Amino acid sequence: MKIVVDAMGGDYAPQSVIKGVVEALKELDVDIALVGLQDKIEAELANHTYSKERLEIIHAPEIVEMKDSATVTLRKKKKSSISVGINLLKDPQYQAFISAGNTGAVVAASTIYLGMIPGVARPGIGLVIPTLKDFSFIIDVGATTDPKAKHLQQWALMAEIYSHVVLGVDNPKVGLLNIGEEASKGTGFAKETHKFMADRLKNFIGNIEANEIFMGTCDCIICDGFAGNIVIKVAQSLMEGAAALLRREIKKSPIALLGAALMKSRLNHIKRHADYSEYGGAPLLGVNGIVMISHGRSSPKAIKNAIRAARGEIEHNIIASIRKEIGE
Amino acid sequence: MKIVVDAMGGDYAPQSVIKGVVEALKELDVDIALVGLQDKIEAELANHTYSKERLEIIHAPEIVEMKDSATVTLRKKKKSSISVGINLLKDPQYQAFISAGNTGAVVAASTIYLGMIPGVARPGIGLVIPTLKDFSFIIDVGATTDPKAKHLQQWALMAEIYSHVVLGVDNPKVGLLNIGEEASKGTGFAKETHKFMADRLKNFIGNIEANEIFMGTCDCIICDGFAGNIVIKVAQSLMEGAAALLRREIKKSPIALLGAALMKSRLNHIKRHADYSEYGGAPLLGVNGIVMISHGRSSPKAIKNAIRAARGEIEHNIIASIRKEIGE
Repeated sequence: MKIVVDAMGGDYAPQSVIKGVVEALKELDVDIALVGLQDKIEAELANHTYSKERLEIIHAPEIVEMKDSATVTLRKKKKSSISVGINLLKDPQYQAFISAGNTGAVVAASTIYLGMIPGVARPGIGLVIPTLKDFSFIIDVGATTDPKAKHLQQWALMAEIYSHVVLGVDNPKVGLLNIGEEASKGTGFAKETHKFMADRLKNFIGNIEANEIFMGTCDCIICDGFAGNIVIKVAQSLMEGAAALLRREIKKSPIALLGAALMKSRLNHIKRHADYSEYGGAPLLGVNGIVMISHGRSSPKAIKNAIRAARGEIEHNIIASIRKEIGE
Repeated sequence: MKIVVDAMGGDYAPQSVIKGVVEALKELDVDIALVGLQDKIEAELANHTYSKERLEIIHAPEIVEMKDSATVTLRKKKKSSISVGINLLKDPQYQAFISAGNTGAVVAASTIYLGMIPGVARPGIGLVIPTLKDFSFIIDVGATTDPKAKHLQQWALMAEIYSHVVLGVDNPKVGLLNIGEEASKGTGFAKETHKFMADRLKNFIGNIEANEIFMGTCDCIICDGFAGNIVIKVAQSLMEGAAALLRREIKKSPIALLGAALMKSRLNHIKRHADYSEYGGAPLLGVNGIVMISHGRSSPKAIKNAIRAARGEIEHNIIASIRKEIGE
């Protein structure tokens, strides 16, 4: 099993990516192909010891910047680590692609170079999120702007399959993110989507409101990429903000500092549960290949866990499962 | 100054509402008109001591339930506390209306009975939210489904005025909630709205992403009611969820329990800063009268602070300010 990793993607590339890859080689039964500027990759690898026969370096001379538009990337940077890496998936020995780089570019390049799974018209980025109960899966968190109701139905079907096949959830419950519980509530788009979902999904529990997302009310939460992006960005910033506020307040009092020290092990337990890097990357579903998008600020651990998640998708043959269930 | 309060609105009505009203009468220089079932109001008031000449009871025989649709309310419950209370504002001695009841019904009744301020086509619910810096103002959090770009421009102008006139912010910075910083990013709707806002607003700082909302990056955050509702519901549930998680973890270890006890005063400081009830209700802007919507789960303190906030709007003559600035 060989997984392609974009060495140049993310705010701390290539250091953070390569450190994560080296850790993955130690802990996981995978081979890796690192794509990017060969000299930079080699220079960074010189700082590490790793199993050389399990790591391939593939040179890609161009780099997609975070600010580059998806169109520019596709037209003018055909030899970027993203384009070269995704194109590798056409060769069956390369089974998944991971990047912490420009999300729009990864989505566009995956769609163009790999094509879509028949029956899926638009890609969606899914994300495993921690909840008070355990975890849930939310899709789309930002792949497709201005989707149609039909697309959300397709994402819902894929979410159901992903939850069951990859995450091991039996009969995952699926909810539509909306601003009211009744089918008659919300925007025109939400009402139309509700009908599409009720038509086709086995375990559709109807609308769920945003305050239920992190309660673990349902296993799969379906929404458009605008709403999903807001959900995860508010959640992430609030958790970081709350932690910063806690640190600031604690520092104001020596007694509180002592209290915090005594609470440390339990606070760390919560931190681990809430930490996105524990859950690996975000699968780009709908394209005809396994693509995983990691957070731009991915730590080595986040990269390693994204590799672990991609490995799970390969083992469970997620693409074949989606083809079978959704195929038209 | 007399403020009308819906005695029947909210999950804990009329007890919680009346307790809040009694506290307001003690602390604030206002008179109150309580609208609802006279016998229930009187029975509850019998448990309190208060200045009787400053409290008027106005009987309204019908109650709007949380599940009632706005249309049903307007057509079939013309004598509800919401309808009767809002209609009172046509008499100049009654200067504001507050309800913790059915939001959709309050929005619909306000729009129909009070009409809109000239130049504003749709109402928006604003909300003061705590941030890492201090506080910000977000609009709309759920009054209008499927707004047009032009409506967001109007809400932005009102938010600017509200921040300046009522909240005392000099030259409030206004941002558009979107999923990318550049004007070219986001949905078609977001791009169109960006143009409308750039056209007319003095201190438009452009798009802001959801992770910046609670950082205090800008004073006014403008979004459609679907997105705004998601922002506040995710935020509220996460803060409650984090607190529940913290309590659960702390209980697992006696040492952590001791630590928490030592941290209590600092934790309470954060809790107060994050507590929605500290910030009063949510002003319904655009309608031709001062209407404040309180959370369905409003505590007496939340009701009292909503009365305080309505009092601020009356003192600063917010309606006249909006008329003057936005009038066409």
